[in-house]
Amino acid sequence: MSIQERATQAKQAQIRCASLSTAAKNTALEAIAAALLEHRHKIESANQSDITRAEQQQLEAPLLKRLKFQGEKIDQACQGVRGVAGQSDPVGVVLSGRELDEGLRLFQVTCPIGVIGMIFESRPDALVQMAALSLKSGNAVLLKGGREALETNRVLAEIIAAATEAAGIPAGWIQLIETREDVKTLLGLDRHIDLLIPRGSNQFVRYIMDNTNIPVLGHADGVTHLYVHSRADIPMAVELADDSKNQYVAVCNALETLLVDASVAGDFLPPLKERMDARGTELRGCERTRAYIEVKPAQPEDWSAEYLDKILAVKIVDGLDAAIEHINTYGSGHTDAIVTADQQAAEQFMNLVDSADVFWNASTRFSDGFRFGLGAEVGISTNKIHARGPVGLEGLVIYKWRLYGSGQKAADYSGPNARTFLHRSLNLEEPGEENG
Amino acid sequence: MSIQERATQAKQAQIRCASLSTAAKNTALEAIAAALLEHRHKIESANQSDITRAEQQQLEAPLLKRLKFQGEKIDQACQGVRGVAGQSDPVGVVLSGRELDEGLRLFQVTCPIGVIGMIFESRPDALVQMAALSLKSGNAVLLKGGREALETNRVLAEIIAAATEAAGIPAGWIQLIETREDVKTLLGLDRHIDLLIPRGSNQFVRYIMDNTNIPVLGHADGVTHLYVHSRADIPMAVELADDSKNQYVAVCNALETLLVDASVAGDFLPPLKERMDARGTELRGCERTRAYIEVKPAQPEDWSAEYLDKILAVKIVDGLDAAIEHINTYGSGHTDAIVTADQQAAEQFMNLVDSADVFWNASTRFSDGFRFGLGAEVGISTNKIHARGPVGLEGLVIYKWRLYGSGQKAADYSGPNARTFLHRSLNLEEPGEENG
Repeated sequence: MSIQERATQAKQAQIRCASLSTAAKNTALEAIAAALLEHRHKIESANQSDITRAEQQQLEAPLLKRLKFQGEKIDQACQGVRGVAGQSDPVGVVLSGRELDEGLRLFQVTCPIGVIGMIFESRPDALVQMAALSLKSGNAVLLKGGREALETNRVLAEIIAAATEAAGIPAGWIQLIETREDVKTLLGLDRHIDLLIPRGSNQFVRYIMDNTNIPVLGHADGVTHLYVHSRADIPMAVELADDSKNQYVAVCNALETLLVDASVAGDFLPPLKERMDARGTELRGCERTRAYIEVKPAQPEDWSAEYLDKILAVKIVDGLDAAIEHINTYGSGHTDAIVTADQQAAEQFMNLVDSADVFWNASTRFSDGFRFGLGAEVGISTNKIHARGPVGLEGLVIYKWRLYGSGQKAADYSGPNARTFLHRSLNLEEPGEENG
Repeated sequence: MSIQERATQAKQAQIRCASLSTAAKNTALEAIAAALLEHRHKIESANQSDITRAEQQQLEAPLLKRLKFQGEKIDQACQGVRGVAGQSDPVGVVLSGRELDEGLRLFQVTCPIGVIGMIFESRPDALVQMAALSLKSGNAVLLKGGREALETNRVLAEIIAAATEAAGIPAGWIQLIETREDVKTLLGLDRHIDLLIPRGSNQFVRYIMDNTNIPVLGHADGVTHLYVHSRADIPMAVELADDSKNQYVAVCNALETLLVDASVAGDFLPPLKERMDARGTELRGCERTRAYIEVKPAQPEDWSAEYLDKILAVKIVDGLDAAIEHINTYGSGHTDAIVTADQQAAEQFMNLVDSADVFWNASTRFSDGFRFGLGAEVGISTNKIHARGPVGLEGLVIYKWRLYGSGQKAADYSGPNARTFLHRSLNLEEPGEENG
């Protein structure tokens, strides 16, 4: 089947997924979890085959580690699926209700987006999570995993398709895509695919974003800043810089550039240097920074670098406005924080820094769906429309306008004897309950 | 200045527009209205010059009519601007609040999207309305109007820029773009422009959508359906078909294809034919339709035609599922309605028809921001993300996550002595009130 035919088949199934009950979807999620455990040996055998091939091809150790999907990892994936079953249904939520006139009532009700393309590198657990999130939100999904995990992904997709079909979910809602050529085709199907969610390296996500007209939910870069304001508590600033940078360096919400107010540079930079030395983290400073502490000189490209490593760029700035200007110029709109005891400065920072997550006196590492309490995370978005920052299940739905009438015509509301609209807000109830 | 420089200038102004108070924005809107009235003669003189040139170029009468911006039209535009001032501020609305832990509180707060490109054909009143909506929502705007209205648009943009700058709005928030070459450049500026809103013909909007990676809010086609179900009230069905088709044929929410359940075709089609004949509306029917009434045969292309004229395609279908299938295959996801006395059939129709607006026993012509009670309308969207159907001011905002902490580190919440997140929902209050 061509990718276009697969997308069409997915769409046909999705139409019927839109009206599945919450109970039917949760039963199917439980069936996925049960089937993964039941077929554990089949999964592990396919995964072992992928690993053996990857070892022969001398895949790097971190990639090999992420490729592994056996034992405890399978149990965790099942827990994840059951967690999605436990979340409230994002479909059918009444966002607003308005009585336009007597017997003419309008409801804005959430519904699935449609067909979602999820493209990810390496980790097979992502396939399970993405499938569970799509099912719960009534969407169909075209999944493309990493080439290294080909056999594992194939087995997982088969198990999920069979288990959900047996549980009454329309067949065809989940489709696996395997080749890079197919991804190219997929990027051109803007009349068939409603949303793309890529997960992987910056270059990978940037490639997707630059090569499609389909809306993309995600982020390419996480050039994250912490600004130490003139009224910062210095020990707190050292702690937050340390946690933001060093708690886990390989992730998008880890700190990359530290901005230091000129008025506190002398107090703050020496203890910062001491802490970073203790962590084995390299500092790269602007010329003014190097007047206080002995560090490597920062180059122009350091201001927009996402190191994902034990490296931190440090720049001295003259006040709040300069810090905001720097962040809005070099940042990636992901996560930026200020350390200060001055509420007015903090509010100004949070108002004017144009990023998804703006924090006051907290580590940048809190930028995360789980920490935010959103439940299972679809991804982190630096988009300026639809969904921004950590995105939960609600990022996979849109809404419809459902109008319940009794024969009303537009002509009744125009001309000399026009009726007037009431436009009265309704209590949010189940739409249609009183109709019929 | 290049388009890129203009976009950069607009962005710099927009950053500061994000924190404007509601009062400051409303004062500036009043200043626009006052300035338009004050400079009425200047506007009318520029507009007359555009009209004279258009007449010399033998522009068609409907286009000439839309180009005219004088007298009452200027008064109406001012009323429109004051109407936007009267709407509630879409910025700063707290969508959710959650206490992650003691002293660590998270708020999801609406904010402007950023820089919006608004591209429209002909009507100068659109420029005024678009500018007012952008200002109220804290966005900057790059405006490109029709070539015919060049002089009018230039005067209007100057008046609006001067009036708002005098009222304290950051200069540069409104930029006028004049040439087609500049539009091409603009479509490529996906790192500078956050959203495009095109208004004009299908071909025009489709061109924009197909030639940019920037998100586009709008709709190309309005292939609108009415389905007369087996349990339809026949006189009501005739009235709704008449109103949906004939009340105003030149608009996107006007009916284009009528689907008739086979079981009521004999009762419904003769009175429908009589009514459409009286209106001078041409019917084009499928073969089965032509067994009941004498009409032109429909060709395959009629099922996806948006006539915007006194023409209606008619097709007999076998039941609800076939109607839904037809609409999801040939429709444009804009507005589709069912006439029936059967609530279950209506709910099924509204669940499974994948369109922005799904109506039961009401004219398709209600698909409109004013009729929906949304206030000033940004446009009607057939997007599957962000905003769908008629879009009001809330379509011009997104949100930020604002985290208010007191020195919390991510490391405190991991490892053997990890703190547990509270994730307690907060009453929605102004963020930060209790911080400081």
